[in-house]
Amino acid sequence: MRRSTATLIPDRAATGEALRTTRQRTERLALPLAPEDQVVQSMPDVSPTKWHRAHTTWFFETFVLGPHQPGYAPVHPGYDYLFNSYYEQVGPRYPRPDRGLVSRPTCAEVADYRAAVDRSLDDLLADADEATWQAIEPLVELGVHHEQQHQELLLMDIKHVFSCNPLLPAYDPSRRPLARNATASDRAASWVDIEADGIVEVGHDGPGFAFDNEEPRHQALVRPFRLADRLVTAGDWLAFMDAGGYRRPELWLSEGWATVQQQGWEAPLYWQRDDGRWAIFTLAGRRPLEPDDPVCHVSFYEADAYARWAGARLPTEEEWEVAAVRHAAGDDPNDLGTHLLHPRPAPAAPPGLRQLGGDAWEWTASPYRPYPQFRPPPGAIGEYNGKFMCNQMVLRGGACVTPPGHARPTYRNFFPPAARWAFSGLRLAADD
Amino acid sequence: MRRSTATLIPDRAATGEALRTTRQRTERLALPLAPEDQVVQSMPDVSPTKWHRAHTTWFFETFVLGPHQPGYAPVHPGYDYLFNSYYEQVGPRYPRPDRGLVSRPTCAEVADYRAAVDRSLDDLLADADEATWQAIEPLVELGVHHEQQHQELLLMDIKHVFSCNPLLPAYDPSRRPLARNATASDRAASWVDIEADGIVEVGHDGPGFAFDNEEPRHQALVRPFRLADRLVTAGDWLAFMDAGGYRRPELWLSEGWATVQQQGWEAPLYWQRDDGRWAIFTLAGRRPLEPDDPVCHVSFYEADAYARWAGARLPTEEEWEVAAVRHAAGDDPNDLGTHLLHPRPAPAAPPGLRQLGGDAWEWTASPYRPYPQFRPPPGAIGEYNGKFMCNQMVLRGGACVTPPGHARPTYRNFFPPAARWAFSGLRLAADD
Amino acid sequence: MRRSTATLIPDRAATGEALRTTRQRTERLALPLAPEDQVVQSMPDVSPTKWHRAHTTWFFETFVLGPHQPGYAPVHPGYDYLFNSYYEQVGPRYPRPDRGLVSRPTCAEVADYRAAVDRSLDDLLADADEATWQAIEPLVELGVHHEQQHQELLLMDIKHVFSCNPLLPAYDPSRRPLARNATASDRAASWVDIEADGIVEVGHDGPGFAFDNEEPRHQALVRPFRLADRLVTAGDWLAFMDAGGYRRPELWLSEGWATVQQQGWEAPLYWQRDDGRWAIFTLAGRRPLEPDDPVCHVSFYEADAYARWAGARLPTEEEWEVAAVRHAAGDDPNDLGTHLLHPRPAPAAPPGLRQLGGDAWEWTASPYRPYPQFRPPPGAIGEYNGKFMCNQMVLRGGACVTPPGHARPTYRNFFPPAARWAFSGLRLAADD
Amino acid sequence: MRRSTATLIPDRAATGEALRTTRQRTERLALPLAPEDQVVQSMPDVSPTKWHRAHTTWFFETFVLGPHQPGYAPVHPGYDYLFNSYYEQVGPRYPRPDRGLVSRPTCAEVADYRAAVDRSLDDLLADADEATWQAIEPLVELGVHHEQQHQELLLMDIKHVFSCNPLLPAYDPSRRPLARNATASDRAASWVDIEADGIVEVGHDGPGFAFDNEEPRHQALVRPFRLADRLVTAGDWLAFMDAGGYRRPELWLSEGWATVQQQGWEAPLYWQRDDGRWAIFTLAGRRPLEPDDPVCHVSFYEADAYARWAGARLPTEEEWEVAAVRHAAGDDPNDLGTHLLHPRPAPAAPPGLRQLGGDAWEWTASPYRPYPQFRPPPGAIGEYNGKFMCNQMVLRGGACVTPPGHARPTYRNFFPPAARWAFSGLRLAADD
Repeated sequence: MRRSTATLIPDRAATGEALRTTRQRTERLALPLAPEDQVVQSMPDVSPTKWHRAHTTWFFETFVLGPHQPGYAPVHPGYDYLFNSYYEQVGPRYPRPDRGLVSRPTCAEVADYRAAVDRSLDDLLADADEATWQAIEPLVELGVHHEQQHQELLLMDIKHVFSCNPLLPAYDPSRRPLARNATASDRAASWVDIEADGIVEVGHDGPGFAFDNEEPRHQALVRPFRLADRLVTAGDWLAFMDAGGYRRPELWLSEGWATVQQQGWEAPLYWQRDDGRWAIFTLAGRRPLEPDDPVCHVSFYEADAYARWAGARLPTEEEWEVAAVRHAAGDDPNDLGTHLLHPRPAPAAPPGLRQLGGDAWEWTASPYRPYPQFRPPPGAIGEYNGKFMCNQMVLRGGACVTPPGHARPTYRNFFPPAARWAFSGLRLAADD
Repeated sequence: MRRSTATLIPDRAATGEALRTTRQRTERLALPLAPEDQVVQSMPDVSPTKWHRAHTTWFFETFVLGPHQPGYAPVHPGYDYLFNSYYEQVGPRYPRPDRGLVSRPTCAEVADYRAAVDRSLDDLLADADEATWQAIEPLVELGVHHEQQHQELLLMDIKHVFSCNPLLPAYDPSRRPLARNATASDRAASWVDIEADGIVEVGHDGPGFAFDNEEPRHQALVRPFRLADRLVTAGDWLAFMDAGGYRRPELWLSEGWATVQQQGWEAPLYWQRDDGRWAIFTLAGRRPLEPDDPVCHVSFYEADAYARWAGARLPTEEEWEVAAVRHAAGDDPNDLGTHLLHPRPAPAAPPGLRQLGGDAWEWTASPYRPYPQFRPPPGAIGEYNGKFMCNQMVLRGGACVTPPGHARPTYRNFFPPAARWAFSGLRLAADD
Repeated sequence: MRRSTATLIPDRAATGEALRTTRQRTERLALPLAPEDQVVQSMPDVSPTKWHRAHTTWFFETFVLGPHQPGYAPVHPGYDYLFNSYYEQVGPRYPRPDRGLVSRPTCAEVADYRAAVDRSLDDLLADADEATWQAIEPLVELGVHHEQQHQELLLMDIKHVFSCNPLLPAYDPSRRPLARNATASDRAASWVDIEADGIVEVGHDGPGFAFDNEEPRHQALVRPFRLADRLVTAGDWLAFMDAGGYRRPELWLSEGWATVQQQGWEAPLYWQRDDGRWAIFTLAGRRPLEPDDPVCHVSFYEADAYARWAGARLPTEEEWEVAAVRHAAGDDPNDLGTHLLHPRPAPAAPPGLRQLGGDAWEWTASPYRPYPQFRPPPGAIGEYNGKFMCNQMVLRGGACVTPPGHARPTYRNFFPPAARWAFSGLRLAADD
Repeated sequence: MRRSTATLIPDRAATGEALRTTRQRTERLALPLAPEDQVVQSMPDVSPTKWHRAHTTWFFETFVLGPHQPGYAPVHPGYDYLFNSYYEQVGPRYPRPDRGLVSRPTCAEVADYRAAVDRSLDDLLADADEATWQAIEPLVELGVHHEQQHQELLLMDIKHVFSCNPLLPAYDPSRRPLARNATASDRAASWVDIEADGIVEVGHDGPGFAFDNEEPRHQALVRPFRLADRLVTAGDWLAFMDAGGYRRPELWLSEGWATVQQQGWEAPLYWQRDDGRWAIFTLAGRRPLEPDDPVCHVSFYEADAYARWAGARLPTEEEWEVAAVRHAAGDDPNDLGTHLLHPRPAPAAPPGLRQLGGDAWEWTASPYRPYPQFRPPPGAIGEYNGKFMCNQMVLRGGACVTPPGHARPTYRNFFPPAARWAFSGLRLAADD
């Protein structure tokens, strides 16, 4: 969620265009999937594809059309209960762990639902007077960014669903790994010195959209430190495993070690032994493990244990943000995220911090808590981010499945420390 | 499973015809369902529709085509693992509680699977020499009756799936309740005296098909007793509820009472309060409760408590069988089962035991155990029935969802005492 | 619980003597235990020693003193809630799985409770007029037999408690194994032919005490069969284990096999590997496994799998009863049970059925269900046995921890099929 | 854990005296308890009293006597396995949730164990040469502070144990509430302005003992803010409850609200309705709720929800530390903690921050994470604090059950956000 004193989105046409593009992209992402695929919930964290398609639509109905389109009648009286995700102030809702039990509305009915809401949004945008426009513009913008988040979730979730099927279906078998030129991943990572000077400013302060949890911009204390120029790779991780990483309790947080034991972890999620060699399950199907690829689908517990084993540590979220703004390797740090189905090896050049977005989210050492003087907006929309600020860790950057243009250096992603189904990797830090 | 010294199925044509009819009927039953509906597993006991369609096909591949069709190659190498239900001796299998996570093969691919196996079965039946025919005939016959059992499960299961959806979809909204003529259900049940004379013979001894658990035919001791001429009705059940039936521990078995408390039972499964009145969820959708309908979807614990409250008891399975053979009201006792979607009120005439099949299975007082000198057949097929003979209770009769011609007076259905998703009701018995 | 048309207990003196003897024996059994030992509940099935001591006392307070001693005031107002085991009609009660959380009353306070109730019982027995005596005599007798059952439970339970302690404490380290003369256990078991002749009479019909579940005496159909002359031994069981008994699903009931997998069973309860050899944990501490000892602490699932592996079966409870009455080897079949801490090898002579009591309870093939025309007594006392008649299997005989004189040939013990903490073994049967 | 470059404990005599005093105090705390009381584990977080007594002894055996007393033989070979709490590098250990199953060693045997280890420690301290003394002094000091922590746990745990007993036993019924003079708790709290000036120093830097997690001392950024001059009271909490605090999801973190629902929370732990009025269960037994007492036994979730409802927030741990050092009301901030059994109302004077220790721990807004450049000591002792730095929240101050002299302003206590069995309360903060 966001606030926006100075917005860059200048007019209705641009807003409408962003809305239409995003709505269409969701449908395009669902296109390779059969109706059967779109029903399954493989664990409580996962939602079915058609639920994502419907919930993002419900979001516009509930927060834009309902309050602001005079006389608006919901498309279906039962959808409010079915497609409310977690907004207590909106009303009761269908239990999250049971989303996979609901076969109706069918995929075709969900498509109809989306089309009907799109038409109403078109009408509203076209006809709104200036006061209405001022009221709905931030909500439409929020809805667009909300739907982008669900685009990433849709891909995370279907990957998990397919991984539970012994037939190992591929979301998009036509996607092949990129050609592999010389990379910075086949050599040891280099340290980049980050010359933080004590009190720094972090957090969002416009222009452009940001979620409420990125605000307010505020001061933080950051001391000089070093940050690796690339993500930890699968090859690095193999060395950790060969050194007994998953069998040495002294490397782990207590809850992390308990999780390793209970879950029988001995490698990242989606790593599978295939006839004596490691393979990984990707959205393009199963393929041999590439040592230069960033490691991905590791939990915070694993990232933390790896860093300890490596004699290093994870950066704090403030450290990461300062470094990303100042030392991005060539990338425009405001344009993190290129949509692919698998993270890429680090490019060989130019120097600086590579892979700051578009490959794998980076676990930080920071628990997810409100920034000083954080105030969520009033009403149900205030539940968007604030109520999750406990027992989760912050990730920064962006991943190969993050929609282009969605992330930015102040972006705060978050997951519980045991979660592995996000495209989550790590980058090492060290004290100077 | 069966044995068959003297079989009535005389020739390949008849066997082939039974096979084709049954296979087609399964597909017809799935016809009202969207692909989305066919994926869902709403509890571990339930299987997805497309799993039923595939598993019954796997049964023919595994027990008929594989061993008896020279050079037979399975349609897909992964299906043996996916669609083995519980045959330990066939090999490892996909975990039962996770059947709802498997979106592929899709419904269309399952249809192709079925068609391919049907073609191979046609070829095998057409070309088999006499020795092969003797070997496969009992297996094909078993496969037909096995598939009929899954037809009933398919309907039980989809009813449960739909009941979890707050939109309450109907499997077949066109099916309306039957016209209600004068019935025997709107009056108190009458007792029919059963003049058992000590040692009786029960169990199957041909001709015709029977499962192995119905054999061998053997002697049992049955004393004169009385049996109600009709099933307990929804109206009867309302009286039990009004008398505090679900709140009086002295009426219940200890495990039954614990289940009432833990599950919060206060009415049969699928009874729902609708604006102060009782409605029931059926395969034709939700409709007002009809007091003359047989009560259905009650557990053994509930049936047992009801009987105790009524000052009566449940019959043993031997009592039921003797009574059904001797006192059926007009019905041919060998033709239990008429396919409908909901049990019907008892007909007004003729006198005798009404509703012995085709409405609701009847819980008996008998634990499901092997008959004296029971011997399951050797090999994996011996796992069909025998290994479940513990912690389950026998039901007799047949239900509105049982395929026509499937059940018979010696038929032993069985479920754990807490199960409610079968079409299970009860009929009272009393000592003379 | 019992009914008693013709009782053998002739006078108050004898009843009073049985009462005092039994009450004192309970305290003697608790004597080797420290207060700390008497608090622990090692699993929900187990009760702490001091709970047994208090509950048996509550039984007399609730069913004898309260209703029949004018002006009787309970010893403590909180004990009714704490020490009611499962009598719903008496009132609410402390949750069974939490019995191990209750440190007060202490053992000394429980001893005071027992002494106070004993004094009141003495007074009541001394002063009762004839009408009162007629009313209380069957209840006192029931209380005595009830307390004897808890004496056996006390020993079963403390064995389980001690087995959870890595220090392996012994209940009575001074008890050594018996000297081992020539036995019938070091040879293969012999079959004894049981000439049952069709309709037989089973069940209790006086004189003497019996629980209500042994009644009414009734006819049953038993065909000629064979029964092993001794219990299955530990040595026999080792052969089963060596033959892969715990790894061959085809030998097991489906629920049994699931239990083997979930619990990781690979030997009877209390068998422990000790430096490459098998040892067993007993009430006298850990000691090497003796092959001639009866196998003990096996579940019904294991007994059933063993019998299948041995090409035999378990007897029904009716078969066992007929055989015990007619073919007991020298023993008075009415005097089953000699109190020891571990089952003994079968004696070498005389011929006939050895070990019918006093060593290990014998699993039968019979589910625990009411006898025909069974009627529990009215009121809370009717909950004693009847409400457990589902999902349990009958055991016959008696065990080394059964109080002398407690069991008899009509006695029906019962446990769920997965239970192993009773002293439960087996004897094979076969069709003639 | 820490060791101490500049220590204040000057000589062996003082160290020995601190050791003896602490060891004796543990035994004195156990004195009111019967052996039965000392066995019970009422939930996995709780440990039995005799386990605390033995584990603190094992700590000295393992970290002081074993490595530093030549030829030291452990008192019992089985105690290392039984009484290791969580030190993975020491070796395998008995499962924590099963501590309540272990009746042996008895309380008397534990007393012997303690005496034997005390004698060995006396000998070691008397005889150690200077090098040995330098090595053991920090370990003995750590062992003393470790044992003090377990003294508080012992009281927290036995309170929970007794609360599960419907007889509601009192740990010390002779302790009566203090006389209640005029207090600062019967008026609204006042704000104290804390003039933090940006970069401050927090954390321990000697002299005196501190745990490793209080180090290193480092800079933090703290802005001016306000802190309440007293703890939130039971009376304040009643107002929160009357305002529907436990029924309004908008006040709660998402996980907090889920916990409220699952656990059925509607008041702090140990609040009980007694005939229409609130009572609380204390270590002195049940007594009427006193509105001026600090509220206690609330979780972080509840503290956070209360603060939100009150329009305030919780302080960060750095804020709390700065305020405690500068604005303590009369108390020596280095002498937090006076041993009582229940928190007291705030004193009426002098002005400033009252109740900074000795009443109830104060939840802060800070997740428990390592300080910058935190390095745990090498070896098993490094597991003392560091491995718990995830999914827990920091509490500051001290409680009525904290041993005198144990806490200090830099002290970091920590519990998971749902924990309630600690003596945990809260104090409000607000932005300036």
